[in-house]
Formats: sequence, C-alpha cells, structure tokens
Amino acid sequence: MSVSQRLSDLREVMQREHLAAFIFPSSDPHQGEYVPDHWKGREFISGFNGSAGTAVVTMTSAALWTDSRYFIAAEEQLKGTEYQLMKLKIEGTPTIAEWVGRACGPGAEVAIDGACSSANSVKALIADLRKQGGITLRTNLDPLKLIWRDRPPIPDAPVEIYPLKYAGEAARDKIARIRKALREQHADGMLMSALDDIAWTLNLRGADVHCNPVFVSYLLISSKDVTLYIDKVKLTPEVLAYLKAEGVGVAPYEEVKNGLKNYFEYNILLDPDEVNYTLYKSVTREIIEEESPVKRMKTVKNATEIAGFKSAMLKDGIAMVKFLKWLSECSDCSEISVSEKLEQLRSEQPLYRDISFDTIAGYQAHGAIVHYEATPETDAPLKREGLLLLDSGAQYLDGTTDITRTIALGPVTEEMKRVYTLVLKGHIQIELCKFPSGASGTQIDILARKDMWREGLNYLHGTGHGVGTYLNVHEGPHQFRMEWKPAPLVEGMTITDEPGIYLAGNFGVRIENTLLITPYKETAFGKFLQFESLTLCPVDKTPIVREMLLQEEADWLNAYHQRVFDTLSPHLNADETAWLREACASI
Amino acid sequence: MSVSQRLSDLREVMQREHLAAFIFPSSDPHQGEYVPDHWKGREFISGFNGSAGTAVVTMTSAALWTDSRYFIAAEEQLKGTEYQLMKLKIEGTPTIAEWVGRACGPGAEVAIDGACSSANSVKALIADLRKQGGITLRTNLDPLKLIWRDRPPIPDAPVEIYPLKYAGEAARDKIARIRKALREQHADGMLMSALDDIAWTLNLRGADVHCNPVFVSYLLISSKDVTLYIDKVKLTPEVLAYLKAEGVGVAPYEEVKNGLKNYFEYNILLDPDEVNYTLYKSVTREIIEEESPVKRMKTVKNATEIAGFKSAMLKDGIAMVKFLKWLSECSDCSEISVSEKLEQLRSEQPLYRDISFDTIAGYQAHGAIVHYEATPETDAPLKREGLLLLDSGAQYLDGTTDITRTIALGPVTEEMKRVYTLVLKGHIQIELCKFPSGASGTQIDILARKDMWREGLNYLHGTGHGVGTYLNVHEGPHQFRMEWKPAPLVEGMTITDEPGIYLAGNFGVRIENTLLITPYKETAFGKFLQFESLTLCPVDKTPIVREMLLQEEADWLNAYHQRVFDTLSPHLNADETAWLREACASI
Repeated sequence: MSVSQRLSDLREVMQREHLAAFIFPSSDPHQGEYVPDHWKGREFISGFNGSAGTAVVTMTSAALWTDSRYFIAAEEQLKGTEYQLMKLKIEGTPTIAEWVGRACGPGAEVAIDGACSSANSVKALIADLRKQGGITLRTNLDPLKLIWRDRPPIPDAPVEIYPLKYAGEAARDKIARIRKALREQHADGMLMSALDDIAWTLNLRGADVHCNPVFVSYLLISSKDVTLYIDKVKLTPEVLAYLKAEGVGVAPYEEVKNGLKNYFEYNILLDPDEVNYTLYKSVTREIIEEESPVKRMKTVKNATEIAGFKSAMLKDGIAMVKFLKWLSECSDCSEISVSEKLEQLRSEQPLYRDISFDTIAGYQAHGAIVHYEATPETDAPLKREGLLLLDSGAQYLDGTTDITRTIALGPVTEEMKRVYTLVLKGHIQIELCKFPSGASGTQIDILARKDMWREGLNYLHGTGHGVGTYLNVHEGPHQFRMEWKPAPLVEGMTITDEPGIYLAGNFGVRIENTLLITPYKETAFGKFLQFESLTLCPVDKTPIVREMLLQEEADWLNAYHQRVFDTLSPHLNADETAWLREACASI
Repeated sequence: MSVSQRLSDLREVMQREHLAAFIFPSSDPHQGEYVPDHWKGREFISGFNGSAGTAVVTMTSAALWTDSRYFIAAEEQLKGTEYQLMKLKIEGTPTIAEWVGRACGPGAEVAIDGACSSANSVKALIADLRKQGGITLRTNLDPLKLIWRDRPPIPDAPVEIYPLKYAGEAARDKIARIRKALREQHADGMLMSALDDIAWTLNLRGADVHCNPVFVSYLLISSKDVTLYIDKVKLTPEVLAYLKAEGVGVAPYEEVKNGLKNYFEYNILLDPDEVNYTLYKSVTREIIEEESPVKRMKTVKNATEIAGFKSAMLKDGIAMVKFLKWLSECSDCSEISVSEKLEQLRSEQPLYRDISFDTIAGYQAHGAIVHYEATPETDAPLKREGLLLLDSGAQYLDGTTDITRTIALGPVTEEMKRVYTLVLKGHIQIELCKFPSGASGTQIDILARKDMWREGLNYLHGTGHGVGTYLNVHEGPHQFRMEWKPAPLVEGMTITDEPGIYLAGNFGVRIENTLLITPYKETAFGKFLQFESLTLCPVDKTPIVREMLLQEEADWLNAYHQRVFDTLSPHLNADETAWLREACASI
C-alpha cells in the first residue's frame, strides 16, 4: 500500500473526527530506545524508517521533522510523497507547533495518540499548541487501529527467569527496596513502564525488542500488591509459579488502565518522562511526579553483577582479540563482512545471546557518520590503508558489553594520527580521573574534550552512558555529558568512556571502554572514587603520535595493555598470544 | 540594651499580635551581599554579627542557625543569652521549620518581615511550615520599628554620575536594551531591586553599602516610563538633571509599593530570587517569574569597560609589587599591619576609591579559615617562615580588582610545597582552558580540581565568580562551581580563577587572578573562547615543586611572568624593577 493511499485513509478518519492535523512521533507506550514494529506508526504513515522523526499530516499537506543524522536518508525515502522535510536545528525550520499553527489556523483541533508519547512531552506539546492561537490537542484516538490493515502484532516472545546467580538480588528484595524508596518520597505506590526497569525488578528477561532482552508489560506496585500487566501467552508455568512465589500478581497487558483506575491508595509516583500520557491521565489519585527510584537503583551493580560483568568482558575481549588478529590478515573484507565475522566470534563464547546494538563499522568517511550502519548499498570494501571505526557489543547472560576501537588498516595520514591521539588522550584522561563520590558526569566530561578544544575540535554526543546487566546497553540517568546531568556518580555504577572526533567526508575516530566506578580513597575531604576499565582489548598503537601523550597517559596505556595481555593470553592459542603480545607491547 | 531586654520587648509585640515565633534572617530588602546597619535585625535581636545566620524567637526559647564558618564566633557571642546554637549541615540539626514545628505546635501562627527576604525564600518557608502541622506565616510586620529605639537610618550617601568614559554605554541605551530583552520574554516591564543592577543600568554610583559603590533604591521600568525610587536627599541637582535627560523619573523610596500597585501594564517581570516577598505580593498584574535579564547584560563588558579593567589592573599590579617588595623586607609585621600597608599603597594609585572587600590576610593556620578577617584579638605577628594567604582587591573608578597570592615568608614544609604546587597547577589549568562559546562554569571547574582529587584533596568553595566594573566584586550569575550554574560563559565576561586547599589548624593556599573571556578561534565546530589574565602580579615561585608541573604549566607561568614584568616595570623605580625581575625570572 502506497504512502499516498495511507494518507488518504488517514484523512478520511480525520475528516470524520473533525481533526485538522494528526501528529505521529517516533516513540512507543514504553519510551524505549528501540520501537517494536507494532508501534512504528510514523514509519507506516510516512515511509521514513529512521529512529528519530515526527510526521504531521493535515488535510492538504504533510511534513516530517528529523535531525541531521537522517537528512540524506529522509530526503530519499520521502521522495515522490507529499511530505516536506523539516530539518531540525537548522535556521528557519519551524517547530511542529508553529507549522501546525500556520497550516491549521487558530482554534483548530489536532490529535496525537497519547499512549505513544510520555506525559511530559504531550504536556509540552499542549502548551506549545495553545500559544498558536489556541489550538487544542486530542489524545484519545489511535487511527492506526483503523487504517493499518497488516499491522504487526505486539511482540509475544516468551519470558525467562534471570537466575539469581547472575542477578545477585531476589525480585522480592528489590521490591522491598523500591517500597522503601517510595516511602522516603511519601509515595504509596508507583507505575513502572520502562521495560528494562521492569525486567530488572522482577529478574525476568524477554525477547520482544531488538537487542534489548526485555518484554512488553507494565508493573504496578502498591503498598500491598504488585501486578505485572502482560500478555499471558509469554509466561510459561514455571515463570507463573516464580512470579507467584515472589509475590507478583499477573493481569492482561491492556488491563493496566483499569488497574490504575482501581488503584485505591492515597497517591502514586509516576515518572512523567517515562509514563505515557494516556496512562498518566487515567490516574484518579494524587500523582507524585518524580524520577522513578528504580532508575538509579538499577545502575548501581551488586557484587554478583560486577563479577558477571568481568566474566562477560573477558569473553568479549577474547572474541575481540581473535577478531582483530583476523582483521589484520583478512583480504576482500567489507564493513558488513567484518561485522558478521565479529558477531560470529562472539557467538562462540559461552552464555552469548545476542549483539547489544547494531554494529557500527565505518570505514574512512563512513566513520565520520556517528550512527552509521552499513547496508548492502553503502557497504565499503576495506583497503590496507586508513581508519576503520568499529563500535559493537554483545549480550551475554552474565553481562552486556559495549566497545569501540578505531583501527589503522595500513598507512594513515598525519591528520589521522593527530586526531586519533587527541581522542586517545581524552579517553585516558577520563580513565585517570579520581573524584569525590556524588560528582556528576557533567563535571567530568570536559576531561575528554579539553585537549581537543585547544585545537578547535569537538564532538557533539555525550562522552559516556551507563550499561545494563544483560539489559539495555544504554542505561540512565547518569552520563558523561556537556549538558547538565544531575545524577550523582557513585560506587558500583558502570559507565562508558567514548570520546570521538568526526571530520565529515573524511574519517572518524572513537575509542571506548566500559568502566566500573570503584572506591579510591577516603580523606578529611570525604570519599573519593575512581574508574576501573572493565573492557579488555588492546587499543591500536600504530596511529599514536607519542610526543602528544603526557607521560601519565603513556603510563596508563602501557599498564592497561599489560593487564589486557595478562588476563586474556591464558585463553588464547599460541598465534593469538603472539599477536596480542605485540599489540600490548609498551610504547 | 541587653539581648534579654530586646527579647522581652519583642515578646511583648508577639503576644499582642498572637505570634508563636518570629524569624529574623540575615538578608535585607535588596538581597545584597553586605547589609546596611539599618537592616541588621538579626544581629540586633541575637547579638551575633556574622554575615550568615537566622535567629528564631518563640515566647519561651530562642535559637540561631549558622554555618561552620561561624560556629566558634557564634558560640562566643551567644554566651550568656538564651539562644541555642544550631549548626547547619551537622547531623541532627533540625531545619528552622522543624524546630518551629516542635516549639510552637500545629496550627500556630509565626512571622517574618516579608520585606527582608526574597520572594522565593519566603515561598519555600511557607511550604516548609505548612508541612509542620499547618503552621502559617505572617509577613507584614516589622517589629524592629517598635522595639529598636536607636535603629540606624537607611543610609543616605550622595549619588554620583558614573561617567560615560568609564561606563561605555549611556543609561538610555542600556534601558533600550533592557526593554528589548523584556519584549523577547513577552514582558511589558520589570522591577529591579538588586542595587548593583540599578547602578549599572543608570550609570550612577553611591556609597550606601560597605565596599560596594551602590545606593539603596528600586527601579521600575514599564514600556513607557522608568522610575527610580530613592530618598531624594541623595540626589544633587546635577544628578537630577542627568536622570531627567536620560528619561528617568524620580519618586520617594518608600513609594515603590504604590508604584507597583499603580503599574498599569499587562504583566511585569520579577526575579523571585531578587525581589523581596512584600513587593512581590503587592503586584496586582500578571507576574513573569524569570531571572532578571540585567544580570547577564551587566556581566558582558564593553570595550570601554575592558580598557578600564586593564588600567585598574595595571595600577593594582604596581601597588601589589610595591607591597610584595616591602613585605619581603618588613620586620614586626602582623596580619593587620600588612593589610593596612597594602591599602595605603593602593590608595596612592590614581582613581582609587576604596577596597572592594575586607582583606583576608591569614598567616599559617589562619590561612586555612576561608573567610578569615584579622581582628586585634586574633592578629598574628608574621615570622620569617611559613605561608601568608592574602586575598584583597580595590575599587578604582575605572575598574574593580580581586587578587589572591599565597606568599612564603621564609622556609616552608614539604607538605606546604606540595599543596601550593597542586593549587598552582589547578589555577594554571583554568588559565590554559579553551572552550566552546556558551560552555558553563560547572563544566570547566574540574580543571582546577582534578590534580588535587588524585591526592584526595579538595576545596568546598567555588573556583571563580564574575567581577563588576567599579561595582560589586561578586557578580553573577556565571561562576566556576561544582554545583550546576547554567549561565553560559561568553566573550567579554570577567571571572576569577581562585582554587585553594585548606588544611584546618595548619595552613591554607589560594592563588587567584581575575580573567577576561576573549575569542580564541572559529572552526567547523563553532566559536571557541579563551581566558586572558587581567591581574598583573607575580606568583610566588619559591614554594613550587618544579617536577610536579607539566611543561605546559611551567611555560604558562614563565610567559605570564614575562608579561607582568614587561607591563609593570616601566612604572617602577630601579629597586622595585630589580625585585620584580627576580620574582618574574623563568623557572
């Protein structure tokens, strides 16, 4: 069915409902990073398949907003449709509310499916539209139910128990801790809708979402009950019995609205950046709008989880070394073929389950596209020269990995060496940082950038994010970031360290380890923390300009490489060990 | 009159008014850093004269909250009174609301003078008291009017015109810019109550407040009028004529409330952290609660102001060098006598008006008391050993200065050297920083701390603050600080760079220059900025551990010293030049 047919079907609904415009965001009811096909409504209505974008359709026009990552792809995919491309953060681009205001005029009624956007984002949209001559927003209609005939169902992959030997804390104990945190906020209960928070709380994992071992559901906690709203087809008798034993009741997924209506306590905590607007509006009790306490609890790993991370990182390091040795010898490789080889080597490791995100293998100019994913059309053959940026990770049952290496495939230019060394310096300065417990990632972020800034270089993404325990590879709320991130960094958190520099049309460099926050020392000035590299894999030394490194930076690299060699070599064959010895030799 | 007599007078008023408690904060109607004697009500009622503290009096008890800077002083000054000392940030200390809740019981009515606290602080207090069993707060009573018989009047020093050759922009042009900023926020007018904002806007200066050349007044701007509320006795005919020419009307100071009541526009911008609660509540139109746009405008210096700063810094450097040479030779000196000598040398410089804050001259253990001010009782004689911390500044008609040097008066310990070098490294790392325009001080702050943190050392004050143009030495909203300060750093701002380390009972080190933000370079990644030291004065080299400095740090120090020598030496006699040559020699 063509986009124009879909638009025509939609406009029939809009006419019937007297709607001047319909807005399709890229989010789903659970605000996850990856959206199951069932909720890819924006893609259905526009044909544009990028991960970020909003489509708006009026009776006579249509437009799609996306960011610079997708300008080229969106232009191609929208060709031949009536969609106008709206380039976000480009001078002169109207906001969605401004454009709707002009297209629909004062007093119009427009709509969005309130179930597919967070409470805060819909509230902001309502305020913005009101300023456009009093445009009102209807939120209780999902036209896709009527017009999307072959709509994929909500995924129903089976749920499995995440064993205590990996989780380290029983679900009932986590629930007790959550209730304690709620009481501290004078909250009687909470609704959880973030899928990784639910999976973490219940020690369950699923397979509903690409790369994220989560399952579509809601979890309602009151002072007396815990109810999991889920399609029961996903639950084996074993999981049902387990839930019962942990004190968790089960109800159908679509019953959550009724569950909220019947919630009988005095108040309920809802994270308005997490819970969707429709559920938010269906609450009849007092709402405490706060960040979900589960977010921070989940980020602080217990001893069992840390041991699991170390085991997963060892396996990932072994796979990476086998891969890097293979890459150093391969001929006729391409971006896609190296990604496949790496995935294959990882899959041979014990407890391997999946990749943790789509591999980014960007050769030369492709390395400068921050979210590049090779397709058969773009797949570049690798030559024995220049830089390959490779950002990848895996889901093992005992932990999640995330690593970036930029590899010189042969001779590289002086500019590449200079840029590579600046990124490496930034990476190492974060590794070397000691800081008071509770410092924020916003404070520390500059250590990765200060040497680049002196050269007038920078990168526009964050420097690091938390990593889940056999869960989502992106885990908040703490980050290293230029923007304000108040979440304090505390002992037991994981966080990536991944500065980069991207010269458009030329090449890109990023170097990433996943770090663990551990105690450093206690003094009269309080408790100080440090970072420990969990990732075990050599950093390519060939593009380093040694004179640009401080002695402490060279010392760090040599000590890190020594540890990588000592830890990995017992698990490698003689050829691999020889390769690794060379890769880890001192500079 | 004794404190107990004052309390008894107050309680008579409280009984008549059925008040269970009265709260006296340390602030005044204009939220300034230094409070004129007229508003020192907390000192009057408690006897405690520290700059920060809140007294609360019930019918049968009294308590005073202050922070760790004042624990010892407060304990002494409250001795023999019925006041109980409440130590802020110490485990177990109740909040004021909690204590009032316990002392007065549910449903009580307590009071504060709403004119002497910001709107936001009173609103927070009201919310906190409500949680204590519904205690209510009355805000329209000033008991000091009744019980403080010899109360000092509101100061009435004459106002003078700040010449355009120093201000660089006419008052009418500043007012036009403010109106433009208000229109951008859809505000029809604003009330200004920060005394330095008013002085800056009108190009007037006064002498009502210690060290700050400001005058007590309010400024009400509407889309049609500008009215200065001030005691007319302060205004000469020349100033009155000037105000008329700039389009500014004049009304009596106490008429401001009526002015607000008669304000006829649709809405008004009020900064609720600046405007006091009584005025805030007297507004009858719609209030736009935003940071005053004047705060940021004032911090960005124009070319005339920058030239004035450089002239003031040259004079201040000459005075500092004469002083340091004198100090290196003096005998029988003490903390107070060196402060007096420095003030005398500064006062010999052209356009000198005043010191810009009370000099901190802390020898050895006194240097570890961050806000130390020597008194005849504490005044320590200086020996030819150890460290003297000297933080001082001046008001010149063309600019305000703020400088800290820590000086080895003779042999120092290895620990002193190590700590001194860590502070110097931190200072230099800020000086060396290049950053994208719009970065915040929270991001940059860590550069001064990262080397200390590795040793488990830290300091709990900010790393830097803005400096006014012949105005307040502390000028916001931008700062270098561990806490979040969203104000972006832009070209033309001044900011101090003053890391320190304080080892209680032992010694303290702080090294401070005042910096100017200037352009660095423009690249594909945007506009980058840098810092330029305005302060011209050698940094003591004798306590430096050279091996602890990076080459770039030693290079910076040598280049800075070369510039100090080249700029100052033409203004010095032969002996002083010889001393300075030695002080500025390369390391």
